[in-house]
Formats: sequence, structure tokens, C-alpha cells
Amino acid sequence: MTETTVYSGNGLVHIKNPHLDSMEEDILYHLNLGTKTHNLPAMFGDIKFACIGGSPNRMKAFAQFMHKELGLKGDGEDLADICAGTDRYVMYRAGPVLSISHGMGIPSISIMLHELIKLLHYAKCQDVTIIRIGTSGGLGIKPGTVVITDTAVDSSFKPRFEQVVLDDVVVRSTELDKDLAKELLACSKEIPDFPTLIGHTMCTYDFYEGQGRLDGALCSFSSEKKLEYLKRAYNAGVRNIEMESTAFAALCGLCGLKAAVVCVALLDRLEGDQIQAPHEVLWEYQQRPQRLIAAFIRKHLGLCLAAGNKLFSTN
Amino acid sequence: MTETTVYSGNGLVHIKNPHLDSMEEDILYHLNLGTKTHNLPAMFGDIKFACIGGSPNRMKAFAQFMHKELGLKGDGEDLADICAGTDRYVMYRAGPVLSISHGMGIPSISIMLHELIKLLHYAKCQDVTIIRIGTSGGLGIKPGTVVITDTAVDSSFKPRFEQVVLDDVVVRSTELDKDLAKELLACSKEIPDFPTLIGHTMCTYDFYEGQGRLDGALCSFSSEKKLEYLKRAYNAGVRNIEMESTAFAALCGLCGLKAAVVCVALLDRLEGDQIQAPHEVLWEYQQRPQRLIAAFIRKHLGLCLAAGNKLFSTN
Repeated sequence: MTETTVYSGNGLVHIKNPHLDSMEEDILYHLNLGTKTHNLPAMFGDIKFACIGGSPNRMKAFAQFMHKELGLKGDGEDLADICAGTDRYVMYRAGPVLSISHGMGIPSISIMLHELIKLLHYAKCQDVTIIRIGTSGGLGIKPGTVVITDTAVDSSFKPRFEQVVLDDVVVRSTELDKDLAKELLACSKEIPDFPTLIGHTMCTYDFYEGQGRLDGALCSFSSEKKLEYLKRAYNAGVRNIEMESTAFAALCGLCGLKAAVVCVALLDRLEGDQIQAPHEVLWEYQQRPQRLIAAFIRKHLGLCLAAGNKLFSTN
Repeated sequence: MTETTVYSGNGLVHIKNPHLDSMEEDILYHLNLGTKTHNLPAMFGDIKFACIGGSPNRMKAFAQFMHKELGLKGDGEDLADICAGTDRYVMYRAGPVLSISHGMGIPSISIMLHELIKLLHYAKCQDVTIIRIGTSGGLGIKPGTVVITDTAVDSSFKPRFEQVVLDDVVVRSTELDKDLAKELLACSKEIPDFPTLIGHTMCTYDFYEGQGRLDGALCSFSSEKKLEYLKRAYNAGVRNIEMESTAFAALCGLCGLKAAVVCVALLDRLEGDQIQAPHEVLWEYQQRPQRLIAAFIRKHLGLCLAAGNKLFSTN
């Protein structure tokens, strides 16, 4: 692996919790893994990339895709869910790449990240890059455009995540790794017909009222109010809207993980609220973050982009 | 159906969104259903109960269980997922009962509820009761105890849900139907060895720091601070902690749905943070809300609790 030491001196994951040292066993409940029941260093010690996304099926497909892209043995169709035994999340691996689902929204991704970060810590992983590949609503951009997030912002367009700790509110930074974002953008330029840009990503707690949609079960605002809000977001640099990036950026940043958010826009929210594109168009859009990340990982592992089925030795 | 008219005059679902009337088609994207592609009144018009819970497997098992409890034809093993085609949520039906998953956390349940409430509205359902059956952390109660929520409270123990609408914050009430809660408690008394109580349920945005757990990837507080917080919650009437109830109570209340939250406690948070009970014990605990709701629904449908395989005519 390469220069993933922007945040972390020794490349290890930073766990900022003194209580963990005194625990005899740590059960990663929602992943159905644990420090006594599983040999985490043996299972995960060589992981270099953790790719996460909302949908379990999509993250399974991504693992299968990476399996092929890395030229691993077999067709990758029978990859086993490492979290089998729970249906909260799914986890697959392809070589040094983990592919994990996180469900929808900040609480759901937070549970997974706490347990994944502890897993990477117990497994003594080094220089791990973590990338969220997802779907989003675009803002003033063409559907199908891939947005690489420079900064995740909240519903007031501020680069912050408010975490409730007991009943206090702690404000955390949501900066992401700018060099990693630029590297991903450079990677995208090598793929033909691949509209990609770097911009702010707005993260909300709600898909309907919180994102200014007129089509929820409740809506108390006018179309004009909605557009006024979305245009203010655009003018503040927001290019897409999703529901996980601020918590993701905050938690990964604090734990010394190099992190990126790469989401495709399924529609332009200045044009409408409903996702109406045909299934096959949406399907192709959803492949785009996967294709970009596969190209990026291949590059980092020293696999030539042109090489078709080069064998990669990591199991 | 019976006296489910506490909130709603005509028993219909209240949609408070004037924009919906002018939409030619409404795509319920995350349920993979729509007003043009599906005949929603034919599919759902006779639904009287919507039961929801976090885990897709559990909600499938609940539908199969209800199928048997209602004495419907067949063994119920081959129930079809009505939301097949998306993996965001699952939906099954058994007679007049829908069983739907909602994932973890407020954003995830909110997306599902907006679309479910519109579905019930388009289907012209009347007198629908909606019940969340879930798992939770208990507070000063024995693991396995079933808590019926009277009021959902936030992390400051206040009965409110703060909804961001555009970039404003709107405060909503989180009261639940007190008569329904009492009726459920009465139902529980008819089941032997079934510890059940009515209490406040605290709803948080986070499982680790937000619930005072010492075992997350981050923890900045002491064991004493944690216990001080949890004891304050207990003294405010909180008996269990989960991650969806405030948003659920607020949204259902505004839309005129009679709503209840029934969660089993998997552990006592005053005793620890990790869920360590053996798998089969946890499995039995998770059945308890299902058993209570099945008894309640059978009662409402006029099916005697003792009758084994009485045939129920609704398809």
C-alpha cells in the first residue's frame, strides 16, 4: 500500500476509548463478530480498503465486481456474507477489500462504523482507506453525475456534525481527505464518458421534509420555498444531498481513517423530487461509484487498468 | 374492526400535503410500489394492522407467525415480499396484517413511514392501527421484559421530536395512544410468565455515545457519568432505550394513525452495555412482542385466544 498516512502516524486505527482495554471480550453485536469468537487479526489483518454503501444487495454486487477486477480465483459468485447470522448489515471481502452495507441514515451508519472501526483496530489493520459509495439527489447537476465530496455539510450548509453524547451536544468536524478526493477525480478522468466533480455534500436526517421534497406524507412548505432553499444550498457549494456523510466524515476523521464519499446523483433536485428514471438507467448510474473505486483500488494495488485477469495473491 | 377512532373522525389516514393531489403518479421509491404501477386499493384496502420492526428477517418471521395465528390457509412459509425489487425494506401480509421492516434509526424509519402512510392513504384504508415491535435496552428492568411505551422521549427526557423542515426546526409531540397501551397491557396479563410494563421510551440518534455506552470506538465519559445519566433517565420515567420511537410517534400522530410501541429489553443498561445473552435466549425475547401483538390482533378480529386453527376469511 501507498501513502495513506495523512492522518495517522503509524497507519493504525485510532480508538479513542480507554474503557476497551479493560474488556475481556468485545462483542460486535450488529456484525455478529467478536474478539473471543473470531480471530480478527487472521480474518481481517490484511484489509486495506473498506467500501461501504446503503444497500446490502449493492454491496454484495460490489464485492463480486471487485473479485473480478482484482483477478482473484473463481468467479466470485459464491462469496460468503461474513456477517451471516445477523441481517442488520452484510459484509463481504475480495482480496484486501471489505464491502459492507450500512443501511439508511446517520444512526444506521454510525452503529456499523463504531463496530467496523473496532474490528479494524482489533485486527491491527494498517493504512486503511474507507470509502462510502452511494446514491444521492443531485443539485444543479445532470443525473448520473458522480460527486466526490470535499466537505460534508449539515442542513444549514455548515461543515459540522452534532453528536449527542449522553445529553450534551458535541460538534465535530466533517472535513474529508482533500488529496484522496483529488486522486479520485484524477482516476475518473481516465474512464470515458464519466461525468464527475468535486463538491460539498449536504447530509440530512430526513429524505422528505428535511430535503425539501414536496411528495412526502407531510409537507407544509411551497414549491417556491423549496426551490429557494435548494438554491441557497447550491450557492453554498452543495452539489448533492444524502443521509450519512457528516457522521461518516466525523467518525472516520477522529479515528484516523483516510475517508472519501463518492455518490452518484439519481436526479437533479432542482428539476423534481421523484426518482423516475427507468430501472436500467438507475442500475447503470449505481455502477458508476463502484467502477471509479475499482479503478482507484486497482491503481493503488499496482494492477494496470488495462490488465484483464491478472492474478492477485492476497486471499 | 373496533373503536379505533381516537384520533381520526372517519378512520382514514390524514395526509397533510396539498401537493400530492396534483401529482399524476406517486412512486413510493423505497417500497418499489407506485400509484400507476400497482392497484393499491385492491392490494391493501382491507389492511387493519401495520406492524413494523427493524430487522427484515424478524418481520418475515412475524408475518409467518401471524399467518398461523390467524388460521389462514397454507403453512405461510412461502409468503412473498411485496417490496421485492428493492432491498431497502421488506413487506409481507397475513390477512389484514402488514409486516414491514424499517431498518435502524429515525431517518430509516421515517422514509418507510412516509411511504407507508401514503400507501395506506392511496389504498383508502380505514381504522388502521400501527405498532412498532422491536428490541431495546432496558433501564432498571429485567432482561426479557416487554415495555409498552406511553410516551416517547428524546435524550433530554422530553416528549418531543425535532424535525428539520428545510433548515427550520419544528417541534412535534410524541404522545402515543394511552388507551391502546392499556389494552396491550391487559392483553399481556392473559399470557403466562410474560413480564410487561408501561413506561417512557427514550429514543436516541446513536447506539454508542448517545446511549451512554462505554464500548464504542469513541468514548469520552466515565462509567460514573454514564450511570448518573441513565439513572436520571430512570427517574424521569424511562424504562427502555431505542432509536425510532419519537419519529414514529410524531409522524403517526400527525397522520391520525392509532400507534403503539412494544419493545422487549435485551439487557438492563444499569448492569452493562454489551448484549451477551445466548442466542436462543435473545431469540425467545424477540418473540415476546410478536406474541403479544398476535394475541391483541386475534382479540380485535374476534378470534378466540384458545381456538387453534380457526379459518379467517380475509385473504
